Amino acid sequence: MALTKRSEDFSAWYNELVVQAELAQNSAVRGCMVIKPYGFAIWENMQRTLDFLFKKTGHSNAYFPLLIPKSFFTKEAKHVEGFATEAAIVTHYRLKNQDGEMIVDPDAKLEEELIIRPTSETIIWNTYKDWIHSYRDLPLLINQWANVMRWEMRTRVFLRTSEFLWQEGHTAHATAEDAVQETKRMWKVYQEFFEKILAISGVPGEKSENERFAGAENTYTIECMMQDGKALQACTSHFLGQNFGKAFDVTFANKNNEQEHARATSRGASTRMMGGLIMSHSDDKGLVLPPMIAPIHIVFIPIWKTDEEKQQVSDYITNLTDQLEDVNLPIQFEVEGNTYKFPVALTTKIDRDDQKSMGWKQNQYELQGVPLRIAVGPRDVAGNSIMVARRDQEDKLTLNTEGFVDQVTEILRDMQEKLYKHTQEMRAEHTVKVNTRDEFTKALDDGKFVLAHRDGTMETEENIKTQTKATIRCIPYDEDGNDLYSESGVCILTGKPSTKRVLFAIAY
Amino acid sequence: MALTKRSEDFSAWYNELVVQAELAQNSAVRGCMVIKPYGFAIWENMQRTLDFLFKKTGHSNAYFPLLIPKSFFTKEAKHVEGFATEAAIVTHYRLKNQDGEMIVDPDAKLEEELIIRPTSETIIWNTYKDWIHSYRDLPLLINQWANVMRWEMRTRVFLRTSEFLWQEGHTAHATAEDAVQETKRMWKVYQEFFEKILAISGVPGEKSENERFAGAENTYTIECMMQDGKALQACTSHFLGQNFGKAFDVTFANKNNEQEHARATSRGASTRMMGGLIMSHSDDKGLVLPPMIAPIHIVFIPIWKTDEEKQQVSDYITNLTDQLEDVNLPIQFEVEGNTYKFPVALTTKIDRDDQKSMGWKQNQYELQGVPLRIAVGPRDVAGNSIMVARRDQEDKLTLNTEGFVDQVTEILRDMQEKLYKHTQEMRAEHTVKVNTRDEFTKALDDGKFVLAHRDGTMETEENIKTQTKATIRCIPYDEDGNDLYSESGVCILTGKPSTKRVLFAIAY
Repeated sequence: MALTKRSEDFSAWYNELVVQAELAQNSAVRGCMVIKPYGFAIWENMQRTLDFLFKKTGHSNAYFPLLIPKSFFTKEAKHVEGFATEAAIVTHYRLKNQDGEMIVDPDAKLEEELIIRPTSETIIWNTYKDWIHSYRDLPLLINQWANVMRWEMRTRVFLRTSEFLWQEGHTAHATAEDAVQETKRMWKVYQEFFEKILAISGVPGEKSENERFAGAENTYTIECMMQDGKALQACTSHFLGQNFGKAFDVTFANKNNEQEHARATSRGASTRMMGGLIMSHSDDKGLVLPPMIAPIHIVFIPIWKTDEEKQQVSDYITNLTDQLEDVNLPIQFEVEGNTYKFPVALTTKIDRDDQKSMGWKQNQYELQGVPLRIAVGPRDVAGNSIMVARRDQEDKLTLNTEGFVDQVTEILRDMQEKLYKHTQEMRAEHTVKVNTRDEFTKALDDGKFVLAHRDGTMETEENIKTQTKATIRCIPYDEDGNDLYSESGVCILTGKPSTKRVLFAIAY
Repeated sequence: MALTKRSEDFSAWYNELVVQAELAQNSAVRGCMVIKPYGFAIWENMQRTLDFLFKKTGHSNAYFPLLIPKSFFTKEAKHVEGFATEAAIVTHYRLKNQDGEMIVDPDAKLEEELIIRPTSETIIWNTYKDWIHSYRDLPLLINQWANVMRWEMRTRVFLRTSEFLWQEGHTAHATAEDAVQETKRMWKVYQEFFEKILAISGVPGEKSENERFAGAENTYTIECMMQDGKALQACTSHFLGQNFGKAFDVTFANKNNEQEHARATSRGASTRMMGGLIMSHSDDKGLVLPPMIAPIHIVFIPIWKTDEEKQQVSDYITNLTDQLEDVNLPIQFEVEGNTYKFPVALTTKIDRDDQKSMGWKQNQYELQGVPLRIAVGPRDVAGNSIMVARRDQEDKLTLNTEGFVDQVTEILRDMQEKLYKHTQEMRAEHTVKVNTRDEFTKALDDGKFVLAHRDGTMETEENIKTQTKATIRCIPYDEDGNDLYSESGVCILTGKPSTKRVLFAIAY
């Protein structure tokens, strides 16, 4: 079934794509999703790359409990305020059979309720109390891959789900300078990942006080423009000051042997990135995947009628796949109908005698965003040619069998670069500076990122949000971490003076 | 602090080792553990290897919800019976502030309670209903890496915890033959993993009806002998027949276009394997890790007094590490005080200027089971020698700088093999055949695995368990999957006739 066009109904297009490309689906449990094998293979690639990047900076992985005692949760005032209204709460630990029906056993009520972690600052800092005694124990750099739960009322697969998967980094430091440096270092790691792997150009910046993480002194973000002009907060890195060090009494002896509370940072990137990936690159024909994140880069589709043709086509493809195997490149390929070179699974639907037509299969590979599709028939064998369908371009390419690997590598490299540039250009084209309330509304209606002045009060920010649904996505920074758009102007709402423009948009 | 000796108090030894080797600790949440970075690095190695082995057999990873509606949970009668008494139950979804105190909001009560998954057959088979329509959709081979929760009353780090990490495989098949074959195939994969990677020789076999997974028609297990003679069930693979297919009405059109219920298998291996690994190989000095699962294989410890010596020692070590880096072997090493070659972190405690003595550090590496420790001082440089302390042997080895990598590789290979053989020999030595009730009790008291006759009724099995605490660990199979110990005899309890011996032991 053809997808709804993005221009007609972006939201319907997204929902249909997620299902038809077999990425994920809603589950029978309110707000929780099922991530299907093909979607999960993309997520695994994200995990593998981020995990490597984190470990390069000296982080270790560890694991902390899923459940958080209510009393821990309430120790940091702003933190509990931020998460209390979406807490999934465990109150009992046993079912019992009553007249043939399984009911919650009232005798098995917990003394203290437990919250399923919406994020783990509290349980982790309660543990750090045992781990940190001296400045020699610092910095402590820990990451956790985990599921978390935030009881959302309006959910959407990948973008807003009650349960989601993520990584959360939690570090402890002796000085505020060190902690801020760490916050920014990991924010840069995220930027690198978004630009080089996901091929997404985002706007790095600092959050306004209103939009900070609950309990943070500062939050750094990357804001990406989706194809409908809305913003997606891709990931965040927080400087938490001594808020959690004080709440959980984590102290250490500094170099002068004085006791101080440790400084904290935390950061996270989640399955939400899957939504951002989809809405950044994909088109009306389905998913478009940057080669650096694609589970499979090339699919070979053999086409034949006679047994003789089958043999010829098969030999011809083997010659090409042998070339791919001979070089030590991370190019994953699949020959339609066969098993995979590398244990990365596409959907199970395709890899079997399913009586689907070749046309249907080609469409399905296109829908699922495999970067290169190579159909090989007797005519290709006879002409010693290779016709390549590149997922991000209309015209087919003709390659030679000789130097096949170099050509393919170059195409994949070019595709990765073009996809990145496309998001850069799209954002540049759809970002405007406005100076009045009217221009502001019009720009938002047109699906733009808006650079505007505001007076800097939380009240004005709230009013703008209420009136226009737009939020301050960030106070943009340049590459060196300096403020951008510092210039004097007046607030679009109150007319009060302002010293710099900030980025407003409607957000996911 | 020296560990309690195994011979004095095996249980105290285990608890102390887990903490001192920085593998894990109890958390503030009843029955839930914190897995520390070094312990988690071992678990990551287990995950990576198993994941590869699963994918080689055609499995894909996916992700299903953490929470299971109570009504799903109760659809399969034996399944709910097995897990009802240890279910963590979510009943509310919001906290609210009442007079300054955060309480569970009574207005936010769920219509239907949700159970934190103790295992995912129910939610997964409810999903499979949408995925399976025709025999062409089968087999469906899915694996999930997840946390699960079983409310245990008496817990012990890694061995029995309320929350644990695991993988659970869930497959669907058109025929019972195919499903049984899959159950056995994955059981063999586990055996391979235990023997070749964890260097543990277990007893493969079938569970008695009493000991099967709740909802299974057959359960295959691997039972390993710990150093105290107790059994540890390492992992299990279940043939579930049509129990879940029927409970969740998962039907498919077979080749004759008739509707049938799909057959199911499931299997799991968990962080419990960490406990098995520790209790199989470790000694009174601490952890002993088979090289195939060790996060770090070699630690170089430079020893010097003057700056000149420091330079000499450092150059000498660099020569050796260069040799290791030149070959493409999965040998991980670390130079004390430096960062790591590869992003695998040991404990953060060691890798810093912590004012600990070299003696303390050497002890710590021994305690943490690094297979090879190489201390390099000026005398080694002068004599062009390398003294290697091998974790599983008392005497130090002397190596040449030339051909260093080959020698080290051979030592690691030998260590892996010897550790495996050791578990094989230990088990052979401590397994006995007994024919009477008295011999049975004595053998158990001596910490033996016992091969004995029983009459095959559930009642006798229960009575033996009540009287002796011993359970039927399995009905042992040979390598080809045939029953072992088929011979006639009489039940040790009732004197009734029996056609084969089964394996009894006290289990963890």
